Amino acid sequence: MKIAEGVEWAAHACAVLAALPAGQGLNAAALASFHELPPAYMAKHLQALSKAGIVTAVRGAHGGYALARPASEITLWDIQAAISGAGPSFQCQDIRRKGPCAGFFPGGIPCPIACAFGAAEQAYRDHLSSVALSELVRQVAAGMGTAGREAFRAWAERRNASARS
Amino acid sequence: MKIAEGVEWAAHACAVLAALPAGQGLNAAALASFHELPPAYMAKHLQALSKAGIVTAVRGAHGGYALARPASEITLWDIQAAISGAGPSFQCQDIRRKGPCAGFFPGGIPCPIACAFGAAEQAYRDHLSSVALSELVRQVAAGMGTAGREAFRAWAERRNASARS
Repeated sequence: MKIAEGVEWAAHACAVLAALPAGQGLNAAALASFHELPPAYMAKHLQALSKAGIVTAVRGAHGGYALARPASEITLWDIQAAISGAGPSFQCQDIRRKGPCAGFFPGGIPCPIACAFGAAEQAYRDHLSSVALSELVRQVAAGMGTAGREAFRAWAERRNASARS
Repeated sequence: MKIAEGVEWAAHACAVLAALPAGQGLNAAALASFHELPPAYMAKHLQALSKAGIVTAVRGAHGGYALARPASEITLWDIQAAISGAGPSFQCQDIRRKGPCAGFFPGGIPCPIACAFGAAEQAYRDHLSSVALSELVRQVAAGMGTAGREAFRAWAERRNASARS
């Protein structure tokens, strides 16, 4: 069981967008360059985030992508679901309904094994759904210290200046 | 994020082994036939379960594979870990340490995004670790009813008779 690396990239991209001054955006190339990631893949993931209503296109000199709603209303589960889908990881093939005992499972009663995996996945989703992007950004910003936050602001300003020129 | 179908197959195979009379085993071909699964893949998964100490080879006329310990001491997480590995699904590439702010993250402090995914995975594992194979077998047996349990016993007896002949 592996989570696609695009989920990590998208989460970091959303964290960068959440840390921008209000009204500013960044394009896919800028977001990719911030973590030295391939621009084409970042563009693809941003399109998925846009389709899921997590980011939105912003026009103008400071344009690009911006969060479509407050970071406090975006969770890590929203981001994972946007990139990897919200379907179940355990896809029950109902194999108990094959072989010599196939006929002894009444319809409408799901397989206990599938139910257990479903409940475990719900615990996973519940946890990610409790983690707001705003809280992650607060923790990342605290970890960077004053100098790191200043370096981020300077980088974002340079990107905007080059986008205007 | 997908869980390999082998996890479902292995869980059902372990449930079948747990329902056998004490001292009896089943070989990979018999376990595969019970759910009409490909014998070669079932053999591969049984080898993984054996390597993880969940099943063990039993010699003799009633031989094959048997559970290596009581079903009450085998969890769904044990089975998933045996088939798919116990490593993290979210594999942090620490991409924050690239680009213009790379130098502002002190060593030894993990990325908050990776921590959040790690905690969600722990919730998933904790749930599966709380589900004992013995409880699943109890639920499956209850769902099959008396006729289903009798059909299972008859099938296991026929398999043993053909193995002896």
